[in-house]
Amino acid sequence: MPSFSPAFVDELDRLFLWRRDVRHFEARPLPEGVLDLLLRQACQAPSVGLSQPWRFVRVASPGRRADIRAIFTGCNAAALAAQPEARAGLYARLKLAGLDDAPEQVAVFVDTQTQTGHGLGRATMPETLGYSAVLAVHTLWLAAAARGLGLGWVSILDAPAVAAALDVPQHWRLTAYLCIGYPRAPSDIPELERAGWEHRLPPGDVLLER
Amino acid sequence: MPSFSPAFVDELDRLFLWRRDVRHFEARPLPEGVLDLLLRQACQAPSVGLSQPWRFVRVASPGRRADIRAIFTGCNAAALAAQPEARAGLYARLKLAGLDDAPEQVAVFVDTQTQTGHGLGRATMPETLGYSAVLAVHTLWLAAAARGLGLGWVSILDAPAVAAALDVPQHWRLTAYLCIGYPRAPSDIPELERAGWEHRLPPGDVLLER
Repeated sequence: MPSFSPAFVDELDRLFLWRRDVRHFEARPLPEGVLDLLLRQACQAPSVGLSQPWRFVRVASPGRRADIRAIFTGCNAAALAAQPEARAGLYARLKLAGLDDAPEQVAVFVDTQTQTGHGLGRATMPETLGYSAVLAVHTLWLAAAARGLGLGWVSILDAPAVAAALDVPQHWRLTAYLCIGYPRAPSDIPELERAGWEHRLPPGDVLLER
Repeated sequence: MPSFSPAFVDELDRLFLWRRDVRHFEARPLPEGVLDLLLRQACQAPSVGLSQPWRFVRVASPGRRADIRAIFTGCNAAALAAQPEARAGLYARLKLAGLDDAPEQVAVFVDTQTQTGHGLGRATMPETLGYSAVLAVHTLWLAAAARGLGLGWVSILDAPAVAAALDVPQHWRLTAYLCIGYPRAPSDIPELERAGWEHRLPPGDVLLER
């Protein structure tokens, strides 16, 4: 294994600290070839049994983007209506997607019927197939952040409706819908913390010894 | 956002390339404090609605480790029995856990009833709560690899049996069982590829445009 320098390790920790879920993007496009590079990095992610079940759909057509925007708008209105009264005002002020301004949009699916990996490691925990697509998303996210790019993971979506709008194979299930671009206001504090929605837990609160 | 140097970006890509799922560990322990540091880094992972649903259990007691080993042995025997005849010999030769030699073992759970995050972002895609714990595992994995440490994610386990063996709250669901230590034979090729189980897909095979 190549050794990584202490300076690299420090920078990696700084990357974890600054990697945000971004909702505000500049309009300027990504440099030529960068999205393809990020997708190639995503394919270096680990996967159960080397199943590599991630599937990426670059969504560029204005019509398809409008379909996704409409699905988000409907789901977000329903989520707002379901908020307890005390939090509805705060919820309404949150910006929960960057679908109007992000220059790139990528839908990530998991191929639930892939034969790659020959089922290894997922008989007992079949959810690890979907987890593998999540690992690809996170790899892409960090690769983007290291290049000064922001990524926003939109989950307020009707997953089957997104799959239908993008006309993907029946056995692909939506894992994530990603907005990618240059962030408008980078920060080392999560936007939901800055907005007063939630705060971060002390690490000691989530650890047991057995 | 702090800018990351081109040299850092190159090193990060190298980290993605060398980050392996490790099954062969040296016996030597982690330096004092390193596991706590890795767990703190894991808590920097993104999570849906800032829910931070990850829960970590450091498994140190020999009795608990023996219980986990027994669960793995049973599940792996069942998986071997279910292999098609043509692959059973290859399956039997794979090393699928490092439970006997890894100096550290950490079980990662998701708290399915956490109120943190106030449900934001997971009404439509509730699976994003489990995905958040996966993001913490991957953050820990990369932080470990940058420090020369290997991590093996064991999924050939009966998840409820592991939860019972570790005596965790009823609403915690197992996400991953991790072995951590110094890798015996680092490589930039996945062990399953070296063993002839599966090969990597060309990135072009997993990309559509819409």
